[in-house]
Amino acid sequence: MLLNGVYVEDTFCEAFDAYVARVIITAYNYCLAEVAAKEMSGFATSIIMCPVEAGIERFLDYGETPDGRAGVSVMLFHPSKKSLQRQLIERIGQCVLTAPTANAFDGLEKEEDRFDVGNKLRYFGDGYEKETSVAGRKCWAIPTMEGEFVVENDFGIAKGVAGGNVFIMGETQASALSAAIAAVDSIKNMEGVITPFPGGIVASGSKIGGRKYTFLKATTNERYSPVLKNTVESEVPDNVNAIYEIVINGLSLKHVKSAMRKCILAATKVDGVVKISAGNYGGKLGKYKIYLRELFD
Amino acid sequence: MLLNGVYVEDTFCEAFDAYVARVIITAYNYCLAEVAAKEMSGFATSIIMCPVEAGIERFLDYGETPDGRAGVSVMLFHPSKKSLQRQLIERIGQCVLTAPTANAFDGLEKEEDRFDVGNKLRYFGDGYEKETSVAGRKCWAIPTMEGEFVVENDFGIAKGVAGGNVFIMGETQASALSAAIAAVDSIKNMEGVITPFPGGIVASGSKIGGRKYTFLKATTNERYSPVLKNTVESEVPDNVNAIYEIVINGLSLKHVKSAMRKCILAATKVDGVVKISAGNYGGKLGKYKIYLRELFD
Amino acid sequence: MLLNGVYVEDTFCEAFDAYVARVIITAYNYCLAEVAAKEMSGFATSIIMCPVEAGIERFLDYGETPDGRAGVSVMLFHPSKKSLQRQLIERIGQCVLTAPTANAFDGLEKEEDRFDVGNKLRYFGDGYEKETSVAGRKCWAIPTMEGEFVVENDFGIAKGVAGGNVFIMGETQASALSAAIAAVDSIKNMEGVITPFPGGIVASGSKIGGRKYTFLKATTNERYSPVLKNTVESEVPDNVNAIYEIVINGLSLKHVKSAMRKCILAATKVDGVVKISAGNYGGKLGKYKIYLRELFD
Amino acid sequence: MLLNGVYVEDTFCEAFDAYVARVIITAYNYCLAEVAAKEMSGFATSIIMCPVEAGIERFLDYGETPDGRAGVSVMLFHPSKKSLQRQLIERIGQCVLTAPTANAFDGLEKEEDRFDVGNKLRYFGDGYEKETSVAGRKCWAIPTMEGEFVVENDFGIAKGVAGGNVFIMGETQASALSAAIAAVDSIKNMEGVITPFPGGIVASGSKIGGRKYTFLKATTNERYSPVLKNTVESEVPDNVNAIYEIVINGLSLKHVKSAMRKCILAATKVDGVVKISAGNYGGKLGKYKIYLRELFD
Repeated sequence: MLLNGVYVEDTFCEAFDAYVARVIITAYNYCLAEVAAKEMSGFATSIIMCPVEAGIERFLDYGETPDGRAGVSVMLFHPSKKSLQRQLIERIGQCVLTAPTANAFDGLEKEEDRFDVGNKLRYFGDGYEKETSVAGRKCWAIPTMEGEFVVENDFGIAKGVAGGNVFIMGETQASALSAAIAAVDSIKNMEGVITPFPGGIVASGSKIGGRKYTFLKATTNERYSPVLKNTVESEVPDNVNAIYEIVINGLSLKHVKSAMRKCILAATKVDGVVKISAGNYGGKLGKYKIYLRELFD
Repeated sequence: MLLNGVYVEDTFCEAFDAYVARVIITAYNYCLAEVAAKEMSGFATSIIMCPVEAGIERFLDYGETPDGRAGVSVMLFHPSKKSLQRQLIERIGQCVLTAPTANAFDGLEKEEDRFDVGNKLRYFGDGYEKETSVAGRKCWAIPTMEGEFVVENDFGIAKGVAGGNVFIMGETQASALSAAIAAVDSIKNMEGVITPFPGGIVASGSKIGGRKYTFLKATTNERYSPVLKNTVESEVPDNVNAIYEIVINGLSLKHVKSAMRKCILAATKVDGVVKISAGNYGGKLGKYKIYLRELFD
Repeated sequence: MLLNGVYVEDTFCEAFDAYVARVIITAYNYCLAEVAAKEMSGFATSIIMCPVEAGIERFLDYGETPDGRAGVSVMLFHPSKKSLQRQLIERIGQCVLTAPTANAFDGLEKEEDRFDVGNKLRYFGDGYEKETSVAGRKCWAIPTMEGEFVVENDFGIAKGVAGGNVFIMGETQASALSAAIAAVDSIKNMEGVITPFPGGIVASGSKIGGRKYTFLKATTNERYSPVLKNTVESEVPDNVNAIYEIVINGLSLKHVKSAMRKCILAATKVDGVVKISAGNYGGKLGKYKIYLRELFD
Repeated sequence: MLLNGVYVEDTFCEAFDAYVARVIITAYNYCLAEVAAKEMSGFATSIIMCPVEAGIERFLDYGETPDGRAGVSVMLFHPSKKSLQRQLIERIGQCVLTAPTANAFDGLEKEEDRFDVGNKLRYFGDGYEKETSVAGRKCWAIPTMEGEFVVENDFGIAKGVAGGNVFIMGETQASALSAAIAAVDSIKNMEGVITPFPGGIVASGSKIGGRKYTFLKATTNERYSPVLKNTVESEVPDNVNAIYEIVINGLSLKHVKSAMRKCILAATKVDGVVKISAGNYGGKLGKYKIYLRELFD
């Protein structure tokens, strides 16, 4: 298929089940809310070696947040519910409770499966914490040096989808990268998805296990490495000198698909982009297969 | 002591020994280098529940970096050398190797105690990695989807100082916060120090252990909580309604002291700031005592 | 009236008729679109001495822009239609045509009153320009060093409203300023309004003419200057030490009123804010009177 | 000459005399200082149709500024001393006086040629202004709604150099642009120079006058337009599809040369860059000729 003159390969990405939580961080202003959100979603690109996958979902209008202040929502994904719960406690406790003027509310209110984040963090109040209510939500107000930190009693845990992805191939590194940045920007404030890698972009795709170093869980995906295209059996076209991957985690398969579609459309508008593809493991690993052509039916 | 009309308490902060590493991240431009640096230094405010304490030290001129590109240096601190080493591997592997156009070099070249970060990460190359040299440094070039990731073979591990701090007390929350932001900005690009908390600022100081909830390692420092000043034995002056803490980790005691001095000077220039103090545990815990008055001798 | 515990004075602001244009700047990504938008809307706080009043209205999704790229909309206001037209030519010609990857489209397509911006700028093409069509809009493609600059043939000119405003009074400068920042953030991406001053905030309100220096068009509004509250007949309450003004220009009175309401709500959430008011000239100058109490009916 | 594998043409740029002023804007923090600086340096790319050429020079440490706060320096250039003086008054008056917590000091103290900016702006105080001294500098404190605006009595006017430039040619638009961004970043905080165009980059170089439209002062430089390379007598190499120009204004020829050298070095590090050149008018217009080869002697 050709899209804006760019060849879109007839292939699919594999995606996986993962538990997801959504934290609404509010603060005096967007700058402060973002500071807490970035601290909270750092060191969270891939569960290969990070404790969780996380990222900023979007900026919320003052009218959308429980306490009527500036808001930023962060989503966290992990296939293990226990690990996700632990990370909620640790990251809200270390990165939001400590952040100037920040409060933390649940962003998945309708989920029945709930975890009592605030009810655990309140012990930091050492007996001085008080139950309170914000916009009808049960919260805890914990006395701190700046005043009070307000955190919701419990947070919803939903079943989401992780690992949706798009490959962007360019004639030059800068072209592939500019297209990747355009792709990430095109879903910057989209509801329901995050792109957990640095700036939303993966520079180093991996394959499962190792060919030579068999003791590793993941190693470089040499078939997609432009510098090796004349050395190994390669998937890199002759005119391609760099490939970037956008990894997308979402609340549902529908969210991930919609985001992939937007990313591909945006990427094909940048000159020097020659091919769009996606990453899969031959269909053996992921529960979900997302075919690129279906996105444009 | 009065400084710019603000009362500086005659007290001290306690500081601690910690191992430190410094990673120079380079990229096409500052924006991309910062993206990698922020991902790498997230979820790293305090080792109470974070795996490491980290932050951006400063932006390096193109002429200062081994590969002549835009640079950002990140420092990581941990009292356990093993934990620090593990975090170096995990954070460079997950947050820099994956980041667009980023390379990683050692920022403590003169340290004799070295840890072979690049020599471990190179296995991601699955046999396709190659030894290379950048500005005379032994490095590894690992083939990736974008091209090659270059990482230095080994990184210096030094003995640094963690936990230096300043308390800023204001008539209003906004005054104390504005002063805290000014304090952090005053050391923004200073060589040798980081402020690991969100935006460099701590909203929620803690005491060791718990009064009521004795099972906790750390709980709120109620003596410094303005909302409790009429409830508990309090250190909060009558006219103070918010307190922020700046925590400073540095390469040496001298670096930490110099940064504390700058922070205090900057904070006292903001209107509505009424007192500067510092946090200690009665002198029982920290190896180092830094007296505020000595900073202005 | 009390709002979130803050006194809102029963007064009104005066607002004025002004012509308005809206430019949609598109680019590879939001960062580049914003660079052009900021260059275009600089030196544009007040027509007292600036050639126009301008500001960023909002960020547009890729799906909202004519060429499917990242978009930022800028609005320009001037009571003189001629001056507005001239500024459109100069600012698009100097700040958007020159900006990397930027194009410029009309954001007021339904206006019948139109000005042929692109049809004038195309002469820069020196005969090499070509008529083209983007999403059904008549445009010109002008060859440049980077490739082509695309600009719409004509732009709508509407009748808007300028000078809507809110005064925020705080116990400390930092409190009033934090509230002003929160106010501006609360309408950051709102459709139909801009706040033309630096960061959206006015630090120095003015009165018409001069008391002592009668040769000036505008001088400081001493009745609202906290440092003069014991020197002149003052409107500054005893507990107020700083006042900031938010000036709002909008597509219609309704837009301005809606924005004022949001600003006031956001400002009253910041501690240390004690009073909200508005600026008027006794009702003698402005065509429109906007009563604060009406905003909350 | 080959530099990092990129061909640097043996040519020169022409540069011109221009008067220059340097304004040190200080504020509570860097964010606020930058807000004022950007407002002040907007609509200031080229005196072809802008009233002045301006840009941010660098960020100053707290210890470098007269009032010990965060500082940003802005430089303004104009061949007419009168025009420069008028712009100083208008831009400080409309963009810095109005900006939250901002003050304005002279950044060219040693210049004997001085213009009494503050002494003119003080009339805004309407008789309530007071002479004051900051770090030994004669200043005026003008009462405003936020408190007081402090502005230095007079500012130095120096003879600088405008129009230094570098052309960056790339295989793809994204490569040329990435290299241009790297070039600008490489002199981001360099003392003595600014890059007045949007983001420091020119997308649309111009020639003097017009070929077809002879009534224009400047039109597109068709010989450097990639889309016209098969239509006109072209300077665009076969493998070049985009060209960006970096225009550099500086305090002296030495400053401009040093900046050009850094820009070229940084640009040649980006893949897909194939040639570096510079813009001149056959040596007929500019007082100064800067040969690229001399930069690397």
